[in-house]
Amino acid sequence: MPRVYIGSLRELNHNDNVEIYGWLQDLKLLKNVSFLIMRDRTGTVQVTFKNTPDIVNLLKELPRESVLKISGKINKKSVSKSGLEVSGESVEVLNRSERPLPLPVIDPVQADLETRLNNRFIDLRKRDVSSIFNAESSILWGIREFLHSQGFIEVHTPKIVAAATEGGADLFPVKYFENDAYLNQSPQLYKEILMSSGFEKVFEVGPAFRAEEHNTTRHLNEFTSIDIEMSFADHNDAMRILENAVKSGIENMINENGKDLQENGINISIPEIPFPRITYKECIKLLEKEGLEFQFGNDFSPEELRIIGRNFKDFYFITEWPSSLRPFYTMPNRDDPTITNSFDLQYREVEVTSGAQRVHDPDLLLKRFNEKKLNIDSFKFYIQAFKYGMPPHAGWGLGLERLTMIVLGLNNIRETTLFPRDRTRIIP
Amino acid sequence: MPRVYIGSLRELNHNDNVEIYGWLQDLKLLKNVSFLIMRDRTGTVQVTFKNTPDIVNLLKELPRESVLKISGKINKKSVSKSGLEVSGESVEVLNRSERPLPLPVIDPVQADLETRLNNRFIDLRKRDVSSIFNAESSILWGIREFLHSQGFIEVHTPKIVAAATEGGADLFPVKYFENDAYLNQSPQLYKEILMSSGFEKVFEVGPAFRAEEHNTTRHLNEFTSIDIEMSFADHNDAMRILENAVKSGIENMINENGKDLQENGINISIPEIPFPRITYKECIKLLEKEGLEFQFGNDFSPEELRIIGRNFKDFYFITEWPSSLRPFYTMPNRDDPTITNSFDLQYREVEVTSGAQRVHDPDLLLKRFNEKKLNIDSFKFYIQAFKYGMPPHAGWGLGLERLTMIVLGLNNIRETTLFPRDRTRIIP
Repeated sequence: MPRVYIGSLRELNHNDNVEIYGWLQDLKLLKNVSFLIMRDRTGTVQVTFKNTPDIVNLLKELPRESVLKISGKINKKSVSKSGLEVSGESVEVLNRSERPLPLPVIDPVQADLETRLNNRFIDLRKRDVSSIFNAESSILWGIREFLHSQGFIEVHTPKIVAAATEGGADLFPVKYFENDAYLNQSPQLYKEILMSSGFEKVFEVGPAFRAEEHNTTRHLNEFTSIDIEMSFADHNDAMRILENAVKSGIENMINENGKDLQENGINISIPEIPFPRITYKECIKLLEKEGLEFQFGNDFSPEELRIIGRNFKDFYFITEWPSSLRPFYTMPNRDDPTITNSFDLQYREVEVTSGAQRVHDPDLLLKRFNEKKLNIDSFKFYIQAFKYGMPPHAGWGLGLERLTMIVLGLNNIRETTLFPRDRTRIIP
Repeated sequence: MPRVYIGSLRELNHNDNVEIYGWLQDLKLLKNVSFLIMRDRTGTVQVTFKNTPDIVNLLKELPRESVLKISGKINKKSVSKSGLEVSGESVEVLNRSERPLPLPVIDPVQADLETRLNNRFIDLRKRDVSSIFNAESSILWGIREFLHSQGFIEVHTPKIVAAATEGGADLFPVKYFENDAYLNQSPQLYKEILMSSGFEKVFEVGPAFRAEEHNTTRHLNEFTSIDIEMSFADHNDAMRILENAVKSGIENMINENGKDLQENGINISIPEIPFPRITYKECIKLLEKEGLEFQFGNDFSPEELRIIGRNFKDFYFITEWPSSLRPFYTMPNRDDPTITNSFDLQYREVEVTSGAQRVHDPDLLLKRFNEKKLNIDSFKFYIQAFKYGMPPHAGWGLGLERLTMIVLGLNNIRETTLFPRDRTRIIP
């Protein structure tokens, strides 16, 4: 008899034989019958056993969260809330749990985040927690399918590197045999090199590492970065790909997980594209209209972003950021080099991601290196790729955990990361 | 006028206006006309210009591999080999190349691998080199689609870790703020923890790091690992998923890149599944039949694997490896604990990947830790997940670059890695 997922029991008929595998979520021994709540990845079901001495013997000492295989029959005439239960016939203990559990799975008192993360393997058994990662997987699937449909190929670039993408700060050092190396902060340099190689459209999904000292609810020291780069394209092309990718991700999440999310009280609608565009300078005007003073060249504070965000329903782009605020590889605007062909994707007051057209002219690149006072020695392999036919190109990098947090309306990026790495946490 | 990819020119009509973007692969200035070979990611085409003073002026000093935008008309009455060319009308230089090139793109003399990797950005412009990475992307796409169709969700587990998956050797140390950490050798521990969490079917595609001191043609210090883990499943289930995944990858590669590969002289057929299974002990018998002596518990030498491989067309599994040869998490065979519920996928004499049913009983796990003389202190977070309801589970890990190398019949894993990391190479 093959295993039946609990979520599929409803498709069977009364009295059909079934085998279910899963975790003993709860257990009640009454005088004549015993009620078990069994859980697998697809849901929970009540299993009822008529008490025999053997069954009582086995069940009375059985800790919750033990892993069981249960054979029985579908009972569609159950008086249980769901109208469906399994009449148990035999039970096999596949792995016995210890007790007490380090963290309860079904008790209504919510443990604090530290305790939950310390016992993440149990925390993830809760439906509202595991559904986050089902959603995250679906978002990524939707994004990837869209990129694939647009002719992007998937690449993998090294995470052990000799040069600092963003210029030297926030690096984790790695001892690479006799050499000093670092964990890559972003695939930026490598995906640009691949433009010089003529791949034209690439994306990468992989870890990125930032040795940022400050713990926040929106940053992690290791996160999953979705990066694209495209040739013969500018920031406007990159924004179009980005808004479509985000929409596809959310759409696929709703298709694959909508019901599950609704049951956890999360209702999400597909955002309308194109997302609105507003320039950095227009943002300043919005702030001034509210009576605030703001100096060109500054970054917006969280409070200022809240004010700007009030003008938009959900996602929007802030474009044309000042040159001084963007990394060396960002293309200056042709008519006004104090601003750049760049954008941030915002969700209300939260920054989702950044992107831009990149510099492709080798002389301009060197000029930008000097302006940013970067040491070009460690960038030689990168600069080389610009000297022998680098096409115009643009791209963006999108943190998967950040996007999932925003889409699901969560307030801490640790909630959308299976095993977060922050200032103090490397275990589990 | 929108850009037309060179590979799509053939679909247009004689005299249609086109704009093409790409690299000037070659250039011949004759007395009255000039011939340009233009290349983009989809192919090459000849562009013919009638010589005017302006055109000659521009072209005569134009280095090969410069990036150009060319406007012109389709000429289907061309006498060129392909029967198709573009009659050029205007040309714009988007980025000028320097010369000489550090590595030629079209010269017939093959540079050695070191030189090619030092100048990888140009090396990747060669069609036979770039097609490897198009194929690799397609293989991964096919594998992922199959896993998705089977209900696997995609996860991302940390690469900065405190514990050594395989027990302490071959680790790259990372300074993680005030803590000592390592780059993860494999997601093994984390994907098993996710089985305890009840995800039941997960896969991950991400970098894995091995500080292996020896340079070989089949190993890299950083590679892309495709890992799956599945619950309520054994090694036989894992083998079925693996052979289907490999088949799907190759199938998708042929669908998406078959023509391109054929043009590079690579003909690949879809392997038949199920792949043959042979036990480790049966392999010994094969060797003995050839007059060789072999001691149970030893690993097969390359020469021995060549002899075994002769009995199979392409892919096959060697199963039931001795316990002493497998890591601590491998499930011993119930009837004969000197062997394990494990397998290697082989392609002729080359090992493609390993997998197994895993230990799920916490007492057996501790026993295996002791047998392997591992320090359990750094594995506490892992062992914890076994004590409170770990289901039976199985899985495998597959190196994407290794698989691509084998499928394409290449003889060095650096050929299937964009920017390889080996004993001495961290640049580019």
